[in-house]
Amino acid sequence: MFRVNENYGKLQGSYLFSTIARKVAAFTEANPDKKIIRLGIGDVTQPLTDPVIRALHSAVDEMGNAETFHGYAPDLGYAFLRETIAENDFRSRGCNISADEIFVSDGAKCDSGNIQELFAEDSRIAVCDPVYPVYVDSNVMAGRAGNYNPETGRYDRVIYMPCTAENGFAAELPDEVPDIIYLCFPNNPTGCAISLEQLQRFVDYALKNGSVIIYDAAYEAYISEEGIPHSIYEAEGATKCAIEIRSFSKNAGFTGLRLGYTVVPKELKCGDVSLNSMWARRHGTKYNGAPYIVQKAGEACYSPEGKQSIRELVGYYMKNASAILEGLRDMGYTAYGGVNSPYVWLKTPGGMSSWDFFDYLLENANVVGTPGSGFGAAGEGYFRLTAFGTHENSLAALERIRKL
Amino acid sequence: MFRVNENYGKLQGSYLFSTIARKVAAFTEANPDKKIIRLGIGDVTQPLTDPVIRALHSAVDEMGNAETFHGYAPDLGYAFLRETIAENDFRSRGCNISADEIFVSDGAKCDSGNIQELFAEDSRIAVCDPVYPVYVDSNVMAGRAGNYNPETGRYDRVIYMPCTAENGFAAELPDEVPDIIYLCFPNNPTGCAISLEQLQRFVDYALKNGSVIIYDAAYEAYISEEGIPHSIYEAEGATKCAIEIRSFSKNAGFTGLRLGYTVVPKELKCGDVSLNSMWARRHGTKYNGAPYIVQKAGEACYSPEGKQSIRELVGYYMKNASAILEGLRDMGYTAYGGVNSPYVWLKTPGGMSSWDFFDYLLENANVVGTPGSGFGAAGEGYFRLTAFGTHENSLAALERIRKL
Repeated sequence: MFRVNENYGKLQGSYLFSTIARKVAAFTEANPDKKIIRLGIGDVTQPLTDPVIRALHSAVDEMGNAETFHGYAPDLGYAFLRETIAENDFRSRGCNISADEIFVSDGAKCDSGNIQELFAEDSRIAVCDPVYPVYVDSNVMAGRAGNYNPETGRYDRVIYMPCTAENGFAAELPDEVPDIIYLCFPNNPTGCAISLEQLQRFVDYALKNGSVIIYDAAYEAYISEEGIPHSIYEAEGATKCAIEIRSFSKNAGFTGLRLGYTVVPKELKCGDVSLNSMWARRHGTKYNGAPYIVQKAGEACYSPEGKQSIRELVGYYMKNASAILEGLRDMGYTAYGGVNSPYVWLKTPGGMSSWDFFDYLLENANVVGTPGSGFGAAGEGYFRLTAFGTHENSLAALERIRKL
Repeated sequence: MFRVNENYGKLQGSYLFSTIARKVAAFTEANPDKKIIRLGIGDVTQPLTDPVIRALHSAVDEMGNAETFHGYAPDLGYAFLRETIAENDFRSRGCNISADEIFVSDGAKCDSGNIQELFAEDSRIAVCDPVYPVYVDSNVMAGRAGNYNPETGRYDRVIYMPCTAENGFAAELPDEVPDIIYLCFPNNPTGCAISLEQLQRFVDYALKNGSVIIYDAAYEAYISEEGIPHSIYEAEGATKCAIEIRSFSKNAGFTGLRLGYTVVPKELKCGDVSLNSMWARRHGTKYNGAPYIVQKAGEACYSPEGKQSIRELVGYYMKNASAILEGLRDMGYTAYGGVNSPYVWLKTPGGMSSWDFFDYLLENANVVGTPGSGFGAAGEGYFRLTAFGTHENSLAALERIRKL
């Protein structure tokens, strides 16, 4: 009799956001008259910008004409997009990344879930705590995380780097040396960023100890302060030890369009083995490229008009972030983030557990957020609100919370 | 020092179609004046049909408007598409498959590469020989295939089911019992189909021996003869032992749009563990849904007008298949397939090896096909031509071959 991958049995409950979606659906069914405001899952609400819409229509027209039809995309993405990315996202910031180090994909979530396949099965991973669940869960599925300890709320082979108010939500270098270090800054879920100096310390640590860093920079467009790195390749030596994952979801509103990319520098090697070649092999074997029309939409984000429209979109959400952060603080909440990221990370009032506060907020304010403990043990007692709602809803949610 | 997944080192060369693309690029660069006809990679050439184009434009307009904008898609796909698929592709054929057994994805290649993750690491797989490389390569990467033996051209832990002229290119039941059996019918690359009776024997074998069948039905739209199953669920008991993978690439021309789906019946279990739940967990954790606009395009394929346009598209390519098959036979070639599939499988002339014939055809006729040995040891001495070119090019390629 065939047998299944038993590591799936080690996963805790369902994927966090699926659980939230089910809880909200149950509440809505029981209370059809209540108008829910969703500041939970990090999904955007504003429509695609005009330059992107025009690029999509134009690319659709191409697909309807035999002379301009596009079949299978090149494995790693169209050159027009990869060149544009290399120039605008990296070389313009002084990062020496070329087009053949960029792999276009259908999103950062897939890439951050799949990247672990390149590494040895017994690799030790380190993650921030709290953490975006995909990094851990994808390693649980692959058998690297070990067993779950319900008492600690942690997996026994994962090295956790707590991000707490005490360390300013900046992970500290782990004592035990991991093979793979997952970092996400500006951070999801805490909304906090780290300086280039802090990031350089991680790069130096990785170079010294032979670790590889998976750097999730999905929120870099939200950085508003100077001195905060947009790419890990701003740190010296990072092309020898780091992979970077980027998304079009949170800057250009592509959550429903699906586009992202991963940078695997050619200098990143394990002995003679090039990780760039390995990732190319994986793309060629198990992936078939992002749709042509979506890659054209991605390209449109880099025109002068496209850049301007993205700045406006990010500005819209950051106005929400700022309102949420200031509003909560004004009510006496302890709240973090919201300056270089679209997430506000608040301490639950009166020592409530994260899920208790989730239920409390859902039932009494009809506002959906994300319980901090869903992101890891160190997130217990915290709660995440996103700035991705409409401005009206963000303000309305605050008013409802104020009245509690 | 971190270590990589050493199984990647067991892969043979690069992905078949990447190798072909590089060879063709080198030839084109050296011979810029030669007009190449590509009947190699199974990529379509005809534009998307009008109903699909209209659905895309309309969905793009929705994405540009805040009231109708769509962010993250439901993990498993939009209900509108899953319901339509269940009704049209299954219930209309008497197959008892419901919408919550259908998982929409960005294509059959990804699904057929990823599905192996659900199974135990030491599972034994069986594949047809010749075979679509993704089934084998994805298992090599996961460590299930064992080591490659250059003398046999085979991996030592894979059970091969030769599809030869002697058995009518229909795989025979393996003596050694595999955990997982990959089947693709109508077959890529041989272009041959099997009867419902032959398929039922595989289902009975799987039920009796506790194997699971991964059934790739990407080419079902090309079936022209009666008695050939379009879905494995036409066989009795298949919902207890089989997963089916489908594609929009080859019927609706979505190679550059990316849409497919996988059916994991709720009855398919290993003990108490539901594979449907496992695949749902994988989708939720490592995937983020196909684009809304592409799912709307998929839905448009099932309207009366959409169905008619697909029939015409398939008819166009089948006219090519028929011309290639008859033309080659007329020239004295031994050729198979092309009746229930868009592939023609020909015996190379004069005992040439598959790659020698590839080079010969590229250099002397400037026609690109796919060497049979690229699909497995039993494909040596064979060659695949696809019907996905334009009709003019298909006829022109035949003329060039005739003149050799």
